[in-house]
Amino acid sequence: MTPSRANVVGTGLIGASIGLALRGQGWHVTGSDRDEARAKEALAHGALDEVGTDPDAQVTFVATPVSSVAAVARRALAGTSGFVTDVGSVKGPIVAAVGSPRFIGGHPMAGSEQEGLQGADAQLFAGATWVLTPTEATDAGAYALVRSVVSSLGADVVAIPPDRHDALVALVSHVPHLVAATLMGLAAEGAEEHASLLRLAAGGFRDMTRVAAGHPGIWPDICAENRTAIVSALDSLLTSLSGMRAVVEAGDRAGLLAELERARAARTNLPGGVARPEDLCEVRVPVADRPGVLAEVTTLAGELSVNIADMEIAHSSEGERGVLLLVVDAVDAERLRSALVDRGYRPSAHPLS
Amino acid sequence: MTPSRANVVGTGLIGASIGLALRGQGWHVTGSDRDEARAKEALAHGALDEVGTDPDAQVTFVATPVSSVAAVARRALAGTSGFVTDVGSVKGPIVAAVGSPRFIGGHPMAGSEQEGLQGADAQLFAGATWVLTPTEATDAGAYALVRSVVSSLGADVVAIPPDRHDALVALVSHVPHLVAATLMGLAAEGAEEHASLLRLAAGGFRDMTRVAAGHPGIWPDICAENRTAIVSALDSLLTSLSGMRAVVEAGDRAGLLAELERARAARTNLPGGVARPEDLCEVRVPVADRPGVLAEVTTLAGELSVNIADMEIAHSSEGERGVLLLVVDAVDAERLRSALVDRGYRPSAHPLS
Repeated sequence: MTPSRANVVGTGLIGASIGLALRGQGWHVTGSDRDEARAKEALAHGALDEVGTDPDAQVTFVATPVSSVAAVARRALAGTSGFVTDVGSVKGPIVAAVGSPRFIGGHPMAGSEQEGLQGADAQLFAGATWVLTPTEATDAGAYALVRSVVSSLGADVVAIPPDRHDALVALVSHVPHLVAATLMGLAAEGAEEHASLLRLAAGGFRDMTRVAAGHPGIWPDICAENRTAIVSALDSLLTSLSGMRAVVEAGDRAGLLAELERARAARTNLPGGVARPEDLCEVRVPVADRPGVLAEVTTLAGELSVNIADMEIAHSSEGERGVLLLVVDAVDAERLRSALVDRGYRPSAHPLS
Repeated sequence: MTPSRANVVGTGLIGASIGLALRGQGWHVTGSDRDEARAKEALAHGALDEVGTDPDAQVTFVATPVSSVAAVARRALAGTSGFVTDVGSVKGPIVAAVGSPRFIGGHPMAGSEQEGLQGADAQLFAGATWVLTPTEATDAGAYALVRSVVSSLGADVVAIPPDRHDALVALVSHVPHLVAATLMGLAAEGAEEHASLLRLAAGGFRDMTRVAAGHPGIWPDICAENRTAIVSALDSLLTSLSGMRAVVEAGDRAGLLAELERARAARTNLPGGVARPEDLCEVRVPVADRPGVLAEVTTLAGELSVNIADMEIAHSSEGERGVLLLVVDAVDAERLRSALVDRGYRPSAHPLS
């Protein structure tokens, strides 16, 4: 990828991270923000070469809130002869509204705890999935260019049609969030004596409702923009759940087992992080819930240079014991397991697929 | 609690753990199992004083699979003049089928990674919630005795009517499990090109579907025994989800926000482990996904004698960065946070309620 000139519109977390990453590769980055002070901060932070709009930009990244992307992208197309892409989390309505062969929709699956410029980081997209949504109308040059720019930021590009993207994120992100909130609401209703009765809620319920603890502020926009796909995914879920209800009511043991086995196989094959599940192994370590145990286990992993790709504590009861689940590279699992045995733990290792 | 004589029927994980715990307090424990070899193993393991049935037992624990509890409990009632209790995960049908004032239903919310005798542990119930389900017909002496025996094992006793127990576990355990499997099945169907497209599934989806990876073998029994409560909870869920669908379809932003805020408040108040949420604090530490970071943070916590009640890694993307979420006692949070700052981390601390 030969560095050239780029525009960034919207200098929040994603826009500023794109600016930092491109400048690090030698690009000349011009940027703007609805809030001019924020664009100046991005300049001071090193995310931009200058504030403004570059008519000679080869590519413009629109990194504004989802509801304004289409209008901003149209202005960008009018102001340059280069290609334009965006980073919004809904694609169908945006791609349809922009309607230009020089525009290609995009959605980097990356974020940060720190919002805005504070979280900006040239490495934000390293290893992240970045969806691009070319259509039949998209200029092949637009796709090729944006794809190589995005790849140069370290992202893995996945190309999907816009509506397919929206249906999929509805299914794996938006609807699960609404389901978590609904389950939590029902449980709270069902347990008027809340504090004592919800103690029956075991780890699975905690896992399933964790996302419901998040700030709800972004959801009205998401549900508005992706309404069609969300309603359609909710309809599929309602149909499937009614099917599950029928299986339970009929006492259809074989049918139930078949459904659960299918889900189990799919869950086990769910790709995890940057590695593929077949390259990973889960090490389960029964532990006491006391200071020092986590440190001992993770220090040991560090000493052995075993990278912990994922980790959780599964409480086997409301009590003081649990199981530490460590997901590590399959090649490292046996080394970690036997070192843990040497320290008196009783770990077991299981391939993830 | 003055130690006396007890029977244990079924010497698997729970039964053997009860035997170990009671014997540790000086009880004389007689036990049996459908599989006589297993009872002999429990004897050899120290979980029993003798194999057989003690007609003078003050209390009998029935720890057999849920589908056989009622019949076994009736036999135990016929064989002794003492009280009888069980440990099955469904209560209404069992309590109704046994129908004796000397029987009180029970359900310890405890388990272990290791199944059977291998997982048996006198400390299994320390800090665990143990539900007892007295009814109007229950002998007050039965409740008082079983309650004090169970408390002496370190469990926190929660008394609820049998049907209420079943409705609640349907809501917080059985139905969430079925929902996780259903969501996973739908996502797998929706993503024929599975491996690449399911990479769009972010951490929330992984959390929500984790339980679907478990062995489905126990579910036909649970769904059969608790059918009424599960079907009723599924009906409530279907109604609530249809309501959510209507809110999304109508673009009712205020309605959506209200639902999500309500769920958020309930989730935040979900009691966690042995501590109450108001006594806990969440410390969020942005970290790089490399060997050593977890060890450094958890070692620090160990050095400061800060107990980590819960812990997870929230991946902010598919990439190599994440946030370490540590749940610690509120009184320790600031000490941990500032020590982390001294080591160059950028943690933030938030009360859990």
